[in-house]
Amino acid sequence: MSAAASGSNMPEWYQPNKQVEDPVLRVYNSLTRSKDVFVPTKGRQVDWYNCGPTVYDASHIGHARNYLTQDIVRRILRDYFGYDVNYVMNVTDIDDKIIMRAREGYLLKETVEKNPALTAELIQTARKAYAEFLPKLVKSLPSPVESGSDDALEQFAAIAAKDASDAEFARAGREKEEKFGLYITSLSKARQAILDAEKSLASGNTQGVKELVDSTADVLGPYLGTTLGDTIADPRAVSRDLAAYWENRFFEDMDRLRVLPPDTITRVSEYVPEIVSFVEKIIDNGFAYEADGSVWFDVAKFEGAKADGFTHEYAKLQPNSKGNRKLIDEGEGALTANKGKRQASDFALWKARSKPGEPAWPSPWGEGRPGWHIECSVMASAILGQNMDIHSGGVDLMFPHHDNELAQSEAYHGCKQWVNYFIHTGHLHIEGLKMSKSLKNFISIDDALRDYSARQLRMAFMLQQWNAKLDFRKDLVADVKTKEETLDKFFANVKARINEAAARGPNTDGKHHFDEQEKALLEDLHKAQYDFRVALCDSFNTSQALTVLLDIVGKANVYFSGRAGEYNIEPVKVIAQWVTRMLRMFGLAEGNAVADATAVGWGKEGDSNDSGDFEAKLDKYIRALSSFRDDVRKLAIDGAANKEILALCDRFRDNDLVNLGIQLDDGQGANGSALYKIVDPAVLIRQRDEKAAAAADKAAKKAASAAAAEAKRIAQLEKGRVAPEDLFRPPQVAEGTYSKWDEQGFPTHDGEGAEVSKSATKKFQKERKLQERLHADFKAWQEKGGQ
Amino acid sequence: MSAAASGSNMPEWYQPNKQVEDPVLRVYNSLTRSKDVFVPTKGRQVDWYNCGPTVYDASHIGHARNYLTQDIVRRILRDYFGYDVNYVMNVTDIDDKIIMRAREGYLLKETVEKNPALTAELIQTARKAYAEFLPKLVKSLPSPVESGSDDALEQFAAIAAKDASDAEFARAGREKEEKFGLYITSLSKARQAILDAEKSLASGNTQGVKELVDSTADVLGPYLGTTLGDTIADPRAVSRDLAAYWENRFFEDMDRLRVLPPDTITRVSEYVPEIVSFVEKIIDNGFAYEADGSVWFDVAKFEGAKADGFTHEYAKLQPNSKGNRKLIDEGEGALTANKGKRQASDFALWKARSKPGEPAWPSPWGEGRPGWHIECSVMASAILGQNMDIHSGGVDLMFPHHDNELAQSEAYHGCKQWVNYFIHTGHLHIEGLKMSKSLKNFISIDDALRDYSARQLRMAFMLQQWNAKLDFRKDLVADVKTKEETLDKFFANVKARINEAAARGPNTDGKHHFDEQEKALLEDLHKAQYDFRVALCDSFNTSQALTVLLDIVGKANVYFSGRAGEYNIEPVKVIAQWVTRMLRMFGLAEGNAVADATAVGWGKEGDSNDSGDFEAKLDKYIRALSSFRDDVRKLAIDGAANKEILALCDRFRDNDLVNLGIQLDDGQGANGSALYKIVDPAVLIRQRDEKAAAAADKAAKKAASAAAAEAKRIAQLEKGRVAPEDLFRPPQVAEGTYSKWDEQGFPTHDGEGAEVSKSATKKFQKERKLQERLHADFKAWQEKGGQ
Repeated sequence: MSAAASGSNMPEWYQPNKQVEDPVLRVYNSLTRSKDVFVPTKGRQVDWYNCGPTVYDASHIGHARNYLTQDIVRRILRDYFGYDVNYVMNVTDIDDKIIMRAREGYLLKETVEKNPALTAELIQTARKAYAEFLPKLVKSLPSPVESGSDDALEQFAAIAAKDASDAEFARAGREKEEKFGLYITSLSKARQAILDAEKSLASGNTQGVKELVDSTADVLGPYLGTTLGDTIADPRAVSRDLAAYWENRFFEDMDRLRVLPPDTITRVSEYVPEIVSFVEKIIDNGFAYEADGSVWFDVAKFEGAKADGFTHEYAKLQPNSKGNRKLIDEGEGALTANKGKRQASDFALWKARSKPGEPAWPSPWGEGRPGWHIECSVMASAILGQNMDIHSGGVDLMFPHHDNELAQSEAYHGCKQWVNYFIHTGHLHIEGLKMSKSLKNFISIDDALRDYSARQLRMAFMLQQWNAKLDFRKDLVADVKTKEETLDKFFANVKARINEAAARGPNTDGKHHFDEQEKALLEDLHKAQYDFRVALCDSFNTSQALTVLLDIVGKANVYFSGRAGEYNIEPVKVIAQWVTRMLRMFGLAEGNAVADATAVGWGKEGDSNDSGDFEAKLDKYIRALSSFRDDVRKLAIDGAANKEILALCDRFRDNDLVNLGIQLDDGQGANGSALYKIVDPAVLIRQRDEKAAAAADKAAKKAASAAAAEAKRIAQLEKGRVAPEDLFRPPQVAEGTYSKWDEQGFPTHDGEGAEVSKSATKKFQKERKLQERLHADFKAWQEKGGQ
Repeated sequence: MSAAASGSNMPEWYQPNKQVEDPVLRVYNSLTRSKDVFVPTKGRQVDWYNCGPTVYDASHIGHARNYLTQDIVRRILRDYFGYDVNYVMNVTDIDDKIIMRAREGYLLKETVEKNPALTAELIQTARKAYAEFLPKLVKSLPSPVESGSDDALEQFAAIAAKDASDAEFARAGREKEEKFGLYITSLSKARQAILDAEKSLASGNTQGVKELVDSTADVLGPYLGTTLGDTIADPRAVSRDLAAYWENRFFEDMDRLRVLPPDTITRVSEYVPEIVSFVEKIIDNGFAYEADGSVWFDVAKFEGAKADGFTHEYAKLQPNSKGNRKLIDEGEGALTANKGKRQASDFALWKARSKPGEPAWPSPWGEGRPGWHIECSVMASAILGQNMDIHSGGVDLMFPHHDNELAQSEAYHGCKQWVNYFIHTGHLHIEGLKMSKSLKNFISIDDALRDYSARQLRMAFMLQQWNAKLDFRKDLVADVKTKEETLDKFFANVKARINEAAARGPNTDGKHHFDEQEKALLEDLHKAQYDFRVALCDSFNTSQALTVLLDIVGKANVYFSGRAGEYNIEPVKVIAQWVTRMLRMFGLAEGNAVADATAVGWGKEGDSNDSGDFEAKLDKYIRALSSFRDDVRKLAIDGAANKEILALCDRFRDNDLVNLGIQLDDGQGANGSALYKIVDPAVLIRQRDEKAAAAADKAAKKAASAAAAEAKRIAQLEKGRVAPEDLFRPPQVAEGTYSKWDEQGFPTHDGEGAEVSKSATKKFQKERKLQERLHADFKAWQEKGGQ
C-alpha cells in the first residue's frame, strides 16, 4: 500500500501545540548596552571575530579571564545551542611594544657579544642609561593622580639620579615603594651592578660584561633602543622572532587552560598588502588623508556623513569617550608621533617609519607600518566580509580600539553596521584591587596554574557574569572548591551505586518502579533542564546555570539519603549523566576535554580508551623515532663511517630519549639488546646531568692531581740543575759559608778559614752522590727537550 | 557610568535580519504518513516511549537495526538539535512466548534431574512428543500461502510422524527443505536420539538421559509444557528467571552496538497493579467488558464514540488492517483462548489463567495476567502521562500492537491524541530476502559483530532512510568499507600534517594567509554545515548527511593535492574536526562513544589519561624504536656497508612500523624528512601485502615469460639436433617417402621409385641449408653444456 494512496484515508491528526515556549537567547550587546535577541544573519552559522593577543610578553590571569570567558561562550553557542560557530582570532605581531621589546633584546644581546671585556666606555653607557631612565619613567606614568604629585616624583628622580648614598637611596625609594616598588627594584639593581662593575674594573678585572648588561637591562634596554635602534639591519625579522616566541607561549597557556584553539588565526605580518589596499579605499571614500607619509582617519569627516539611507556614527561603543586625549594617545602607541594629524581625535591608519631601525613595509605613502586599529578591520573583513555576528574583546579595548575599528570598517564597506553584537569581557581585580606588578598581586598564568587547576579557574570565572568586573578573592576560590567537592562526592556516590546495581544483575538490581518520589525527581530534572536553558538564554548566565546543576544534585542527594538499597538508581543516574554532559559542555570536564573537542578522526575500532588523545600523546615518540631513522639514513646515504653512526646512536640515547623519559641501558636487555625503561624525564635529565657533572668533576680532579704530580716531578728534576761540582759553592750556599774547596768542589775550610770536620765531609760526600744522580736525571730530561 | 544612564544616548543599532532561514525539523509520522513539522509540546523536552524487547531469545540483526536506528535518531535530537530527550523503554517480561520457553526449559531440566537412569517410560515420552510435534507445527504455520499447500503438508506430516525408513524420511524432508529445513533438523535429530536411546537400553546401558533430553528438546519441550505445565509450583519465578537472563544479554548486545541505554526502563512484571487499575478505568469508561475472568477491549464501542469535542478513532495507524483476523490472532498470543470475546476485532486487556502452571497475578476478575498491548499503554502513561511526543517501534508492531495501544490509552485518558509522532523503523532483509533461520540468512548480533564492526553496522543502517526497508547486501557493506577507508585516509593525512606543522613552530609553520582557495574551502565547509542541517531536518536523512560529510572531505583532499607544504592547514583542520564531531554525534566514533555519552563525573584533574595505561600502550612503540637502534648499532659495530643499513631502514619501515600502524613516507616531510601518519595497522598491513602480492605477481609473470622465451629458444635449438645429412631420412620423414638418396643425403627417388622433381630438389637444398645453420647452433649449444 503506497503512502500516498493510504494517506488519503488516514484518520485525523491534531497538530501539537507548544505548552511551553522555548526561551530565546539574548546577548548583552555593548552596542546597545542591553540584552538583545540573538539573530545570526546566516541562520545557524555564527561569524565571530575575537581580538587576540599582542604577543610581546607572558600572559597573566587577566588575559586568562578574557580568553576563558570567550571560550565558555563559544562552547555554549556551539555545543549547547548547536550553532556552527566560525571563530576567527588575530595575533598582533606588529606593534610598537613588540618593536621596542624586540630591539631592546636584540641590542642587549649584541652588547654582550661585542664586549668581550669590561670597559670604562661600557660602564659609562650604563650610567647614561641609568640617568635617563627615571625622567622618562616619570613622564610615562599614567597620571599625576595615580602616580602621586609631580613634586614628589621630581624629588625622587633627583635623588635616584645622583649618586646618592645607599641610605639616602633606600629612604627615597622606601617612601614611594607602594607605587614604585618595581621601578626602584630595577634602578637599585642597575645601580648596584654599575658600582660593582666600576670596582671590578678599578682592580683590573675585566670580567662580568654579561652580569652588568643583565642587571642593568631594565634601564639599558630602552636607552640602547633609542640610541642604537637604527643600527639594526633587519628589524622585521627581529620583531617577528620575538612575536613568534610569545605566540607559542600564548597558545601553550591557552592549551593548559583548555581554551579551544580558534578556527582561523590571522597574523598581522601576513596581511600587510591587504592593509595597504584597505587604507587606500578609505582614502578614496574620503574618510582618510595622508600627511608626511602617514595616513590618518578623518573622524570629523566620518561622523555624521550621509550614506545610502543612513548616517555614519563615530564611537558607537563609547560615545562619551570621544575626544578623550589620554585614551586616544594610548591607542596610538609609544613610537607614534602625531605629525600631520589634523584633529586630535584623528587616528593613524598607516604610520610612516619615523626612524630607521623600525620594521617597515612598502606603501604608496612610503615605508611604514599599519596602525593598531586597522589590522583588525582588515583581517576580520578578509575572513568574514562586510558584516559579522559577534565581535569580542576585553572591555579596555572598547575605546578607542573597537570604536576605531567600527569607524574604519564602516567607512571602507560603506555599511551601516559592521558588527551586530559586540561583546566585552569584564576586568579582573584581585582582592578588590587592579592587578599590578608593584602591588605584588600580579598573577601570571603559570602562577595561577600552580595554585589552582584549570577547572577551578574556569569555574571561578563562570561564577561571575562574563561582562561584569570579576574580583578574584580568597572566598571566591573557597566557594569554587566547595562546589567542586559537592560534585565530586555526588559522582563518586552515583558511580558506586551504579556499579553495585550492575554487579547484582537485572533480576535483583533493586527498585525499577517509578513511584511518586521517583516521578517527582524526574520532574525536578526536567525543570532543571528548562531552568538551565533559561539561564544560558539570559546572556549566558553561567553562574545561574551552575546553581541549577548544583540544585538538582542536591535533590538527588536528598532522594538517596535514608533509602539504603530501597532506591531506584535510574533517575539519579540520568541526573548524573546530564550534569556530567553539561559540565563537559562548559569545558569543565577532564583533562582531555580540549583533545575531545579538537579531536580529528574517530580512533580505532574497539579501542576502549580515547585513542585520539593517545595518539596526541604518542606523537612526540613517533617523531623522535622517525627523525632518528632519518638521521641514520642520511649518514648512510652520505657514506658516513660506522663510528659516526655509533655516535649518533649515543646522542639519540643521551639527548632525545632522555628528554622523552626513556632510559636505554645498552647491552642490558635480552641477547645483548638495550633495556629500556619509561621513567620521569625530569629524573632522567637530572641523572644525566649529575652523571656529566660527576664525570667533569672527576676529570678535573684527575687533571689537578696529574698537574701536581708533574709539578712535583719537575721540581725534583729542577733540583738536579746544579752540577755536582757547584753544589757547595755560592749561590747554592750563602756567600762566605766556605772559603776553600778541593778540586772536586768539596769545601775544605769554612767561612772563618777553619778546616771542615770529618763528619761534615762525610755529609758532603753523601749529598754530592745524590746530586750526581739528580744531575744526570736533569741532563737526560734537558736532552729530551724538557719533556 | 551606569549602563542605564549611558544607554539612553547610545547611537542607533539595527536589528539583524536573517538572510538564511533555519531549516525546520520535520519527522515522518506514521499517523499521517507524511513528514510533519516537529513540535514537542514541552518546548525543548522530548518525551519518547520506545517499544523494547520481549526477552525470551537472542537478538538478531533485525533487532539491531531497530534499536540502532532509534539510537541514531535519539542522538541527533539530543546532541545535534539540542533537545532534552526523555527516553523511556519497556522490557516485556510477561508474555506467552516467555511463559512457554521458560516452562519448557524448566521441565526439561527437571526431567533430567528426575531420571538418573534411562527408562523405557522416558523414551516412550520422547516418542509421544515426537509424534505430536509435527501436526502442531503445521497448525502453527502462518498461512497456506507461505507454507505451501495443506495437502503437501499433511503428506509430509504423515511420513515424518511414522517410523519411516531413513531413505523415505530423507526424501520427504528434502522435498520440503526450503521451507522446513529447521524443523526437519529438529525432527531428524530427535528421531536419531530416540533410536540411539532404544538401542542403548536394549543393550542394558542406562546412561545418556541428558543426551536424549537435549537432543529431543525441540519436540520434548513443547510436549512437557502442555502435559506438565500445571505441575510448576512458582511459574512467575520460572518466567522471570528466563526473562532476566535474556534481558541481560539484550543490554550486553546493545552495549556492543553502542546503543545508549534508555533514561528509564520499565518492566511489565513491576507494573501489574497499575495495569489492573488501568483496565478497571477503561471498563468504567465503558470501553471494555469482562468475560470468564478475562477483560476485552470493545473495539466497536470505542470506534466513533463521541468524546469532549472529538470522536474516538480505532486503528489510526493502519485503518486498512481493521478486522484482519490473522494479525489480530497473532497479537493475542499462542496461549490465549478467545473465550467470551464478543467481536472478532476485540482484544484482551486481561487474560484469565486458562490452566494452572501459567504465571498469574490477582485481579478483580480472578487470577490472570496482562494482555500484550495494555502493558505499553500503562507504563508509558505511568512515566509520561496522557500525551507524549514520540512513540517508536518496529514497523511490524503497527497493527495490532500500536493501534491497540493508542485505543486503550485514549479510552483510558479520554484524550484525542495520546501520541503526537509515531515513528516506525523499517524491516531488514538480507540479500533481498526476509531473514529466516531456514533460509540460513538468519544473522545473530554475535555473528554480525564477528563479521563487521559496530561502526560498520551503524553506518550501513545510516545509508538507508530509517523508515524504509533496508536490504543488507554485500554491496552495501562494500560501500560502507569504502566510505570508512576514505575517512580513515583523510584523518591520517590531516593528523600527520597537523603534527608536522606543530613540530615546526609558529614562525615556520607554513602558510597562514587566507587566499581565494582557502576562503573557498571555508565557504564549502559552511555550505556543508548548512546542507548537513537540511539533511537532518528532512526527517533525519542520515544517508544524505553522510554524503555531505564525504563531499567536504573530498574538497579538502582536492585542496591538499598538489600543494606539497604550500597549504594552510587551518581550514582543513577545522573541516576534519567538524567531520569528527558529527561522526561522534552519530555514535560512529571510537570505542568509548557510549562511555563518553553515559559518563558520570569529570575524571581526575590533570590526569589527561590513565598514565599507567598510557605507558602500557606506549610500550610496543618504544620496543620497536629500541630494537631498531640495536640493529643499527650492531650493523655499525660489525662494520656493515651503508647499503645494508639503508636496507634495515626500509625493512623497519615496511614491517615493524606497518605492524604498529605507522606509515612513513620518506622525503615527504619538511626538509626531506619522512612524513609519518598514525593509521589503522590493518589498513597498512593490507596495503603492504597488496603491494607485495602485486610485486610477486609481476615477478611471477616475468619469470613465466622468461621461461616461455627459454622454452622457445630451446625448441629452436632442438630443431637443429638432426644432422643435415639425415634431414630427409626416416624418422625425419615417414618410412617409404623416399627410396634412394645421394651421398649427401638428398632424396633422388620417391617411395614409388620415381625420380624426384627439379623443383623438389631445389626445395631440399634450401631446407638443407637452413638445417646446416640450425645444426651448427645446436652443436655450439651442446658444446657449452646445453646452456
